[in-house]
Amino acid sequence: MDTTLQTTDSEALTSDASTDPIGTSAAQGRSAVLEELILQDPGQFRVLTGDRPTGRLHLGHYFGTLHNRMRLQNLGVETFVIIADYQVLTDRDIADNLTEYVEELVLDYLAIGVDPARSTIFTHSAVPALNQLMLPFLSLVSVSELNRNPTVKDEIAHSRQSAVSGLMFTYPVHQAADILFCKANLVPVGQDQLPHLEITRTVARRFNERYGNGTPVFPRPDALLSNAPLLLGMDGTKMSKSRGNAITLAADADETARLIKGAKTDSERFITYDPVTRPEVSSLLLLTALCQNRAPEQIAAEIGSAGAAALKRTVTEAVNEFLAPIRARRTELAQDRTHLRRVLREGNERANAVADATLAEVRTAMNSHY
Amino acid sequence: MDTTLQTTDSEALTSDASTDPIGTSAAQGRSAVLEELILQDPGQFRVLTGDRPTGRLHLGHYFGTLHNRMRLQNLGVETFVIIADYQVLTDRDIADNLTEYVEELVLDYLAIGVDPARSTIFTHSAVPALNQLMLPFLSLVSVSELNRNPTVKDEIAHSRQSAVSGLMFTYPVHQAADILFCKANLVPVGQDQLPHLEITRTVARRFNERYGNGTPVFPRPDALLSNAPLLLGMDGTKMSKSRGNAITLAADADETARLIKGAKTDSERFITYDPVTRPEVSSLLLLTALCQNRAPEQIAAEIGSAGAAALKRTVTEAVNEFLAPIRARRTELAQDRTHLRRVLREGNERANAVADATLAEVRTAMNSHY
Repeated sequence: MDTTLQTTDSEALTSDASTDPIGTSAAQGRSAVLEELILQDPGQFRVLTGDRPTGRLHLGHYFGTLHNRMRLQNLGVETFVIIADYQVLTDRDIADNLTEYVEELVLDYLAIGVDPARSTIFTHSAVPALNQLMLPFLSLVSVSELNRNPTVKDEIAHSRQSAVSGLMFTYPVHQAADILFCKANLVPVGQDQLPHLEITRTVARRFNERYGNGTPVFPRPDALLSNAPLLLGMDGTKMSKSRGNAITLAADADETARLIKGAKTDSERFITYDPVTRPEVSSLLLLTALCQNRAPEQIAAEIGSAGAAALKRTVTEAVNEFLAPIRARRTELAQDRTHLRRVLREGNERANAVADATLAEVRTAMNSHY
Repeated sequence: MDTTLQTTDSEALTSDASTDPIGTSAAQGRSAVLEELILQDPGQFRVLTGDRPTGRLHLGHYFGTLHNRMRLQNLGVETFVIIADYQVLTDRDIADNLTEYVEELVLDYLAIGVDPARSTIFTHSAVPALNQLMLPFLSLVSVSELNRNPTVKDEIAHSRQSAVSGLMFTYPVHQAADILFCKANLVPVGQDQLPHLEITRTVARRFNERYGNGTPVFPRPDALLSNAPLLLGMDGTKMSKSRGNAITLAADADETARLIKGAKTDSERFITYDPVTRPEVSSLLLLTALCQNRAPEQIAAEIGSAGAAALKRTVTEAVNEFLAPIRARRTELAQDRTHLRRVLREGNERANAVADATLAEVRTAMNSHY
């Protein structure tokens, strides 16, 4: 769902790998340095992140990426949050109810604390100058590079469509436009998503080399690796809305209790934190730990021989307590659709202003101011 | 050079050929009907045509396509003339001097009589809403359809680049955006370019089916076949700027005389019009005939045994007489760059207004007005 955080295989781009690499270990070291720099001077960074409007956000999203975004925003890093409404067109259900999906996503954002004064929430479809960047960027990338890109391979593998659309095929270039239109220099990603950023970095480098006349137009954005915890769904498989195993931010306390009550555990009564041999129990402990900002081992020790039923009560309480203020804010916000739409309209206006300014620079660099 | 008139092989698109065909003979019949309808009510048509800014226009362009465009404009058909400045990026020489190439093209247009009050001259790079249409349109076309498209195959074959860029690969979809942003319902093409229009027609049909809710957003544009005469260059091969065998509209009378003096003919003294066995002589006769709006056979008969030298004098006189007013206008216009830039600026403003209105309709149809 997260446009910058899809799961892909980790095959590297071959074309620029030798000249333009972000290897995993290098990226880890770089991320540690970046974290220091953020603390010292958050104002020098701009983050691009976002999601496809595919449904309500859940705890997997929250602790996987949203939490980290909030942290960056609250440290003072300017953030652009894209709602990738052009990337869901092949899903008929979403396309037919797009307004609702987008509004629900904005609701989730505001409920978790995305602050429109510091974070610009906007939609693809509302920013023509961003989308226009696709064209010069497409000229800088070859078809064989797109074919090799793991993003595209993954998209194709995960697609419910039988045919691969031109939009899916060119997705990494659209993502380059997303990141570069606002000159974001920091993109939070998981390790396995590093190759995604390579095309953006390649596009930025090639554009600067070709049109920059010594003055780079675009930054080459850095990956900010986050160690996102792996939360399983209530059935022990990957947490996902489509599997019905996810606790959404918007779910009420009863629904949450019901979901956790039905959660898969194992036959061993004594509760221990052991992610390798006891993945389901450990994921429930981890979820509790994340909600309470404690160590999962400590929670396990407290439950001990009280068993799975006690564990589930503990998880339910922790999750409901953690989500209570988010849910309260969400319920309140949901009653004022005018406000929601204003947030999005103002975000779109700001994104358009930024995109127009970047496109003007691009036109100057490309000698296409007539 | 002409974006709607490139030479391709005539392989048909396979995907929609059965449901969405414009076969050549059907298209010929349809074009005859369209010509009647244009005469009856030119106001019901809108034409999209245009060129890549690759250099000065020559007589091959003039009698091949420009002449026909002028005819349609002067019959009262509203015309949009795109300068495809995003389609020349892979040519370094052009990209580095884009402003000059674009201004020269506008100069040629105005010199031959393109009337900015009736024809909107604009550039790709100046119309973000047009370019944005690429995204929803890309979702309606599969990668395999793009791979099969003869336009793309031709682009690849004619490309000076070793690698095929993403821009080249998606070119037919960009062309669909060019045609549909202004809801053009008529596109002048040669027979061998019919497959080009198929992707545009397919995109229009699929968009309407998917998002139209019973009210089509886009017309399915018709091909208007023109019987463009085949003019050879002065060396007897295809007339082309890059071969140095073309008489440009902007060339002066002396340069024209010199080029024609060096033209290839044949060893037979008696001049006859016989395109099959005497292509070079016949092309010179045809050129004269086109300039004088007479039959080539008649001109041949008048020259007869006077031979190639007399033929060349006749051609030179005819061409220089024909081009004299165009060249005079061009020279005059070239002195007022402010006027040129204003024409283009006003064209771009109008194209943007039209594109913005279409994009607003598209957003409504796609439920993406937030």
